[in-house]
Amino acid sequence: MPAALIAELRAVVGDAGVLTGDEVAARYPGYFMDRIGADAIIRPRSTDEVAAVLRLCSAAGQPVVVQGGMSGWVRATETRGGEIALSLERMAAIEAIDPVNRTATVQAGVILDTLETALMDYGLTFPLDLGGRGSCQLGGNASTNAGGMRVIRYGMMREQVLGVEAVLADGRIISSLNQMIKNNTGYDLKQLFIGSEGTLGVITRLVLRLRERPSSSNTAIVCAASFDQMVNLLRFVDQSFGGLLSAFELIDNSFYRVNTGAGKHAPPLTADQPYYAIIEMLGSHQERDTELFETVLGEAGERGYFDDAVLARSVAQRQQIWEIREDLEHVVREFQPFYAFDVSLPVGDMQDYIAAVTAMLKGRWPDGKIAFLGHMGDGNLHIAIGAGGEGDRHGVEACVYEPLRPINGSISAEHGIGLEKKPWLDVSRSEGERGLMAEIKRLLDPGNILNPGKIMDLRP
Amino acid sequence: MPAALIAELRAVVGDAGVLTGDEVAARYPGYFMDRIGADAIIRPRSTDEVAAVLRLCSAAGQPVVVQGGMSGWVRATETRGGEIALSLERMAAIEAIDPVNRTATVQAGVILDTLETALMDYGLTFPLDLGGRGSCQLGGNASTNAGGMRVIRYGMMREQVLGVEAVLADGRIISSLNQMIKNNTGYDLKQLFIGSEGTLGVITRLVLRLRERPSSSNTAIVCAASFDQMVNLLRFVDQSFGGLLSAFELIDNSFYRVNTGAGKHAPPLTADQPYYAIIEMLGSHQERDTELFETVLGEAGERGYFDDAVLARSVAQRQQIWEIREDLEHVVREFQPFYAFDVSLPVGDMQDYIAAVTAMLKGRWPDGKIAFLGHMGDGNLHIAIGAGGEGDRHGVEACVYEPLRPINGSISAEHGIGLEKKPWLDVSRSEGERGLMAEIKRLLDPGNILNPGKIMDLRP
Repeated sequence: MPAALIAELRAVVGDAGVLTGDEVAARYPGYFMDRIGADAIIRPRSTDEVAAVLRLCSAAGQPVVVQGGMSGWVRATETRGGEIALSLERMAAIEAIDPVNRTATVQAGVILDTLETALMDYGLTFPLDLGGRGSCQLGGNASTNAGGMRVIRYGMMREQVLGVEAVLADGRIISSLNQMIKNNTGYDLKQLFIGSEGTLGVITRLVLRLRERPSSSNTAIVCAASFDQMVNLLRFVDQSFGGLLSAFELIDNSFYRVNTGAGKHAPPLTADQPYYAIIEMLGSHQERDTELFETVLGEAGERGYFDDAVLARSVAQRQQIWEIREDLEHVVREFQPFYAFDVSLPVGDMQDYIAAVTAMLKGRWPDGKIAFLGHMGDGNLHIAIGAGGEGDRHGVEACVYEPLRPINGSISAEHGIGLEKKPWLDVSRSEGERGLMAEIKRLLDPGNILNPGKIMDLRP
Repeated sequence: MPAALIAELRAVVGDAGVLTGDEVAARYPGYFMDRIGADAIIRPRSTDEVAAVLRLCSAAGQPVVVQGGMSGWVRATETRGGEIALSLERMAAIEAIDPVNRTATVQAGVILDTLETALMDYGLTFPLDLGGRGSCQLGGNASTNAGGMRVIRYGMMREQVLGVEAVLADGRIISSLNQMIKNNTGYDLKQLFIGSEGTLGVITRLVLRLRERPSSSNTAIVCAASFDQMVNLLRFVDQSFGGLLSAFELIDNSFYRVNTGAGKHAPPLTADQPYYAIIEMLGSHQERDTELFETVLGEAGERGYFDDAVLARSVAQRQQIWEIREDLEHVVREFQPFYAFDVSLPVGDMQDYIAAVTAMLKGRWPDGKIAFLGHMGDGNLHIAIGAGGEGDRHGVEACVYEPLRPINGSISAEHGIGLEKKPWLDVSRSEGERGLMAEIKRLLDPGNILNPGKIMDLRP
């Protein structure tokens, strides 16, 4: 990129706002990415600076890739030479917490966990919860429409965002910092920026909906011989907990074995069952809720919806159970080359889909490893695969994505498309949808400078 | 409109699909509308027919106004001579109910209550609930992003819609009939059609998220001398019910007096308190939940969060309480000329706002009548006014809308903009937002044939 543009950008964001050379190379590039390829990282301190940066880039036809906490899984923040990266890490203020209206107004660079910590004093919670909580930024959570552990109870990030301020490619600031749960005054513009992976605008500030912090929690892990038991169990606990179910996490035998045993996590249940599930209920009265939790699980057991269960009796036990689900270290080490997938599909199709993917993979790579886990309550499966070698990526991906076609499944439940899933977008989105997406992209970013080549390629 | 076009449309939808003359005049025009002005009502039977109709209208530059159950409050479905109305009443099939995935696939003309009745057998519920439930159509609920009584628990219509099939102005069918709670595969196109009041496309089919049907309910009405008590009470019950609070409906003294007393509803509480609230909790275990409900309200009373309360002890009592909130007959009769408003604002600003609106109105019309009620948990106030005479509409509206400017309130919480609120859109949406809305409208409907002049006027 031209040195003149760098100088102009420097004039906007100050010396400390421009990183180049070794300063760029030293930074964490994100999962599945070797290095940050961008010529420079620009770090504005305000929405006006973001607007000025984009005006300059727009005029110069300069590609810009917004980066958040770099905890994404689909290379949506990958950069190459000739591009610049835009980081909002210096826009990290929690501007307001309103405990009466139960909203927070934040700059896009605030880390998820930082907000949650700040909310403790107010008895409130921001219910989005995912593995990257310690590094992911709220702007990135919005631009990727993050999901996570508690979607069944609270919904995706999209449902938590009341208002957005975003800057368009041409530097126009669109301020939709609505603070109300209800606001039907014309088109809901914020939806354009949520989940569009930085291709339609740069989110600079957010108004977030807060919830009352649950004060009770109950956790159990159960196992079952058949998938049908799990399907019945999910419906039964969702009904019987009457709105308090906050997680229903499926783990298959393969994943359970990878994470439990000698030198790993202690297995709360024997490792010979096909399916396991972690069930969590969050409420407001520990004693009363524990009684409900135990009563409901007791009845579920009597009905044969699971074969064995362990209820967490302490915070430590609860954590032990969750570690079996959240620890990805062992699977990344043992499944090589490692592939991670994130698909969604109707719950009723899940069992057949698991069988189909497994059969396809084992048919081609008999020694291939495969494990399923996921947010079953949301129809969301994560799939870990270790199979094949160099050049086999497309073949491995085909095992996961092709069986989604006949059931209208999604190649991305929560991770997004980025570069990683771009070749497969047609599995989940029709030609009409892709055409309309391209039209919207051209309307908002006619010069194609915002995260170009991510999600889809535009025909010239 | 040209007879040749009518003939072409007739060829598409059949003779029974075209209403003209007296058949049009005989139909209910909707609230605040004298008559259906359209030259014809076209009633397609399928998405393909809708597409064919729109292709013809697009080619002819023929304006088309989609009509649903005609229960809207902002004249978004008003028609005049030269326009045609498009009714989806012959697309009223519930195509599928999937109890495992907990989704329903419906045509846009299905009436809200019809779906709810069909779900009874499955132990499921579609949680959107509003006064128009017996006549409003699900396509209309989506295109207006309907709200209602249970938004605090379940969210707006937008949160209930998983997938949409819509037809663009040029007849292109955009099929985004996603069935999953999570689907991050590019832009979430359905958001364009939800809440845009038929100006960007015609919704023809929907995939809706269903919930487990609550099997317990508890209802109370409370009263308080101060607004602060209500603010504290809302937070306290939301926290203490741990996710089961499903309604918190504020009623002011004026509205309470209109609906109770001789010849009206029996007053469960004396009529001398400034504020009343109906509180409802939906759960899964009647006995257990009633105990929680009573314990929490008991503690709230001890803390001074209300001054008196009546708990419903029977279904009849519950209904009596709700009738005080839902009955609009008396207020429409006694407040003349009658104006109904629907605004939202941060809860912390509510008390001052109520005072400001009242002062403005009484300052101009000392005998004017005004009553507030609303979904306080959502920051949503409905305001009933009887004041002024012919030619005073703008002045009355100013009393309600002008005080929203400094607090960034919304002129429409759930009713939409239509024609009714179009002159006031700038109170809630900035020039930048309105400009972007117009650009999106031009992109999707370049001929401006879909519900032209609703929400906003386009500069030529």
